[in-house]
Amino acid sequence: MDTMALIQGLDLLGTLAFAVSGAVLGNRRNLDLFGVLVLACVTAVAGGIMRDLMIGAVPPAAVADWRNLAVAIVAGLAVFRFPALPERMRFPVRFFDTVGLGIFAVTGAQKALTFGLSPPMAAVMGMVTGIGGGVLRDMLTARVPVVLEADIYALAALAGAMPVALGHWAGMPILPMTAAGVGLCVFLRLMAIYRGWRLPRAE
Amino acid sequence: MDTMALIQGLDLLGTLAFAVSGAVLGNRRNLDLFGVLVLACVTAVAGGIMRDLMIGAVPPAAVADWRNLAVAIVAGLAVFRFPALPERMRFPVRFFDTVGLGIFAVTGAQKALTFGLSPPMAAVMGMVTGIGGGVLRDMLTARVPVVLEADIYALAALAGAMPVALGHWAGMPILPMTAAGVGLCVFLRLMAIYRGWRLPRAE
Amino acid sequence: MDTMALIQGLDLLGTLAFAVSGAVLGNRRNLDLFGVLVLACVTAVAGGIMRDLMIGAVPPAAVADWRNLAVAIVAGLAVFRFPALPERMRFPVRFFDTVGLGIFAVTGAQKALTFGLSPPMAAVMGMVTGIGGGVLRDMLTARVPVVLEADIYALAALAGAMPVALGHWAGMPILPMTAAGVGLCVFLRLMAIYRGWRLPRAE
Repeated sequence: MDTMALIQGLDLLGTLAFAVSGAVLGNRRNLDLFGVLVLACVTAVAGGIMRDLMIGAVPPAAVADWRNLAVAIVAGLAVFRFPALPERMRFPVRFFDTVGLGIFAVTGAQKALTFGLSPPMAAVMGMVTGIGGGVLRDMLTARVPVVLEADIYALAALAGAMPVALGHWAGMPILPMTAAGVGLCVFLRLMAIYRGWRLPRAE
Repeated sequence: MDTMALIQGLDLLGTLAFAVSGAVLGNRRNLDLFGVLVLACVTAVAGGIMRDLMIGAVPPAAVADWRNLAVAIVAGLAVFRFPALPERMRFPVRFFDTVGLGIFAVTGAQKALTFGLSPPMAAVMGMVTGIGGGVLRDMLTARVPVVLEADIYALAALAGAMPVALGHWAGMPILPMTAAGVGLCVFLRLMAIYRGWRLPRAE
Repeated sequence: MDTMALIQGLDLLGTLAFAVSGAVLGNRRNLDLFGVLVLACVTAVAGGIMRDLMIGAVPPAAVADWRNLAVAIVAGLAVFRFPALPERMRFPVRFFDTVGLGIFAVTGAQKALTFGLSPPMAAVMGMVTGIGGGVLRDMLTARVPVVLEADIYALAALAGAMPVALGHWAGMPILPMTAAGVGLCVFLRLMAIYRGWRLPRAE
């Protein structure tokens, strides 16, 4: 299977998931149509743009290629038109968002590896790809980023990026490592949400 | 007429307008002299720096060239010294800010085109150039960016960038497209302010 | 003495100081372990990453090299494990943070000069290196950046970067200019803290 095509396909899926989360927050903040679309696009593409700027992939994929933005706009329009839908379907939205986090972490790490970063820093870049959009979304709406306060969010992204980095280092095939990474990220996040898995806090 | 010289001249004008808006906010927040200057500079150059990083124009114009920063500092000093002036002249300041938005949108799109971006993405880069400085100004002062809440602000920037992108695609001369873009942006923004033009919100 | 080695050694020291300040704020905000580490890392490396992106040093040092991040993580773990320590040792922490500011301002300006920036813009890049991490730390925790409100903070960073920029322009040796820069930054900041040196505010 063509690795680049796989990464791109997954990337569009993650873009869709994150655009929905941005648009939902935009509706809750009672932004107008364009504000909702801006927030959908920012949430969907900012993490990838941060990664691309740092690994030297300029112009970033989301700027060179219109497809990511198009997907984000369509998702934003859908959420704007049917605002009650995501509110009624909390579980799917949350699950979708978690899958998006895992996908971005994995594809972010893979792209960083293809640009020559070391496996540990590629894993960090995967985490940045996964959390960057949400962080900017929250900063734009003037709240402390969920990623800093939610349980096992950034850590899940980092964990999801690790199988890819390890697999690259060990010379293993990409497909199973991709699946393992997304799965691990989703698993950790769901455990945090539904089983209350926590990290310690300082006393 | 030399296109590059035109772009640069307009850019300095937009820089001036945005530096004033940043310095005014700094005074309102009771920042000290240096804080006011920092906010003036950030507001004036951040949008262009974001654009340049994303289109691969490194170092960004505002970093390679001292003139933008110098204009922003002079404007910041003037506002700091005569703080009552912009408060008394609300219409000119607002009008100036709107012209700055249009100028940055147009010059941003033009620069993105010269760096090989497709017309649609060049229009988006124009919008980023126009709104980036104000967004960072508002994030630094811990308020929700005006751009997300104000009526027809980011949209006016995008609309202003479009004639340039379309004109490039259709092979039309730059000067009339530049004028049309700035004019369209200013028109939309003034209609939003004085006629109450609005975009819909989700219900 | 090898200039590059000197810059790198000082950079790790500044990284340590800033990571402590980020981790302390993370503990105060009651973030969990990973959140504290993220904040420690962001505070320590964001300024350098901003500088590197703008001068075209891609991938940024903190991304290409694992050592900065490792130092930040170790510092973050230490503060997380012994949260009372920095609270009890307010003077050392504050002094350390000030030294970090001076170091980053100096090394940031030096790196910008080696990438061909003009001395004035190199001084500005030194200031960005010094204040960038703290600004992002404060934006992430949703408060107005200390740098905009604290007395003589960004100005101290700019002043610290100036001897290096001037020395480069005048062809003077690096070592004494580095010492002078760090010393000037620390002096100004301490005068602001303990002697109440202030800049004027608009009336």
